[in-house]
Amino acid sequence: MKLVRFGAPGAEKPGLIDDNGVLRDLSAQVADIGGAALAPAALDALRALDPASLPAVAGSPRLGPCVAGVGKFICIGLNFSDHAAEAGVEVPSEPIVFMKATSAISGPHDEVRIPRGSQKTDWEVELGIVIGRTASYVEEARALDHVAGYCVINDVSERAFQLERQGQWTKGKSCDTFGPIGPWLVTADEVGDPHDLGMWLKVNGQTMQNGSTRTMIFGVPHLISYLSQFMSLHPGDIISAGTPPGVGLGLKPPRYLKANDVVELGIEKLGVQRQTFVGQG
Amino acid sequence: MKLVRFGAPGAEKPGLIDDNGVLRDLSAQVADIGGAALAPAALDALRALDPASLPAVAGSPRLGPCVAGVGKFICIGLNFSDHAAEAGVEVPSEPIVFMKATSAISGPHDEVRIPRGSQKTDWEVELGIVIGRTASYVEEARALDHVAGYCVINDVSERAFQLERQGQWTKGKSCDTFGPIGPWLVTADEVGDPHDLGMWLKVNGQTMQNGSTRTMIFGVPHLISYLSQFMSLHPGDIISAGTPPGVGLGLKPPRYLKANDVVELGIEKLGVQRQTFVGQG
Repeated sequence: MKLVRFGAPGAEKPGLIDDNGVLRDLSAQVADIGGAALAPAALDALRALDPASLPAVAGSPRLGPCVAGVGKFICIGLNFSDHAAEAGVEVPSEPIVFMKATSAISGPHDEVRIPRGSQKTDWEVELGIVIGRTASYVEEARALDHVAGYCVINDVSERAFQLERQGQWTKGKSCDTFGPIGPWLVTADEVGDPHDLGMWLKVNGQTMQNGSTRTMIFGVPHLISYLSQFMSLHPGDIISAGTPPGVGLGLKPPRYLKANDVVELGIEKLGVQRQTFVGQG
Repeated sequence: MKLVRFGAPGAEKPGLIDDNGVLRDLSAQVADIGGAALAPAALDALRALDPASLPAVAGSPRLGPCVAGVGKFICIGLNFSDHAAEAGVEVPSEPIVFMKATSAISGPHDEVRIPRGSQKTDWEVELGIVIGRTASYVEEARALDHVAGYCVINDVSERAFQLERQGQWTKGKSCDTFGPIGPWLVTADEVGDPHDLGMWLKVNGQTMQNGSTRTMIFGVPHLISYLSQFMSLHPGDIISAGTPPGVGLGLKPPRYLKANDVVELGIEKLGVQRQTFVGQG
């Protein structure tokens, strides 16, 4: 199932994309895509519906972030062996964890606002893992039972804010609109193995990242099990699993985004995002 | 005004403590203490009520976290000149920012669960700043207009998770129950100057921290203005403004909490918290 949220920012409705690519309205079935609606039984109930029986949505409404009410937006740093090499750092011995503000979350095709004073706004295509069931001290063997599904994330990053403005990365990760998620929340059953998905990102049509979740250092079960030793994961929490090589910071010389740049990114089975970057007064 | 939330975890009701210390039920006036209920006009409406006209609550119900639906739990590191000296680090040139998971939030007198495998669970009494109005690119001179009020926070920290488990502090700050907030949200008008408040913490009756918000390096207006350059602050967001000297990590030798330890902490005008620390299977 491909679940979506559509409509104006803050007023999105739940929907799904059927096998013919038609957007169907789920408003009569669930209040929103998030929290309790991501529990296994709740997803089973949606799966049991005949999509053809749901109202088709006219036109091409904006897609919002594919999960509502995200409680935690947890990111994993340097989780691709080839990206660690690019960044010139050693492969971490255990996952590096930081938080992105949930207020950074935006729709997959919304404009991304370059912060005032930013010179180093960068891109990162990442696999988003959406939690469907509370996880606390979970073993790896049961970890995938806690996943509702997956989505594309652009972990937009301001490298000067992140790395040159006193310790801790969260400052460069949390700017408003720095967290496009979607277009779809694809349920885990439809994705299959999350460790064999191609992922790519283009800037103004030029391919910058072209990798695969195969080179993730820590896989999805390990990340969930690991994180659950430090904090409970709740339905609607999102883990952004790190980026493959090709970010602007890693280029020689580095290259960063400016107003009017267009970033497109996608992950196999999970759809494509497209953002125009804009300045702000 | 001293606003509270009372009742069982997850089912708290809004209330206030009147001038005689009586808990009064605000359920008929507001849905909860958080979000839009923290806006200046909403607080003015509560302030206009005659507390004696509100139902007194019988007994001594549990107090929950004094703010509901916290979107961001932002912490400032090393923000006290005397604590930086204790930690053996230089005074930061600008605020150090990290996030605590909102799922760590608990009531002011709830048990704190020492995580499995923890050897270094530590305490930190901190001033909590509760946002009442959205702040984006705010000047210092207007920053206090965005504050709904203040509260006591114990920024409970696992030092091995924070400092010895690969970069980024959030891992040692986000464990479940590591964020007691309250007992009261004291509105800004009742607090006056937030930079002249005594603050203290005791472990099993022994004073460990005894400081004042006077030694904060970055004051409340600067913190709000600064953070608002990186991300919008929204009603119900909380900023934990850093801790004075006397944490377990700074003792020689260091001292950490174990099961059955009792931690009490308070800030002038903002009330007192009391937590029993417990192990978990």
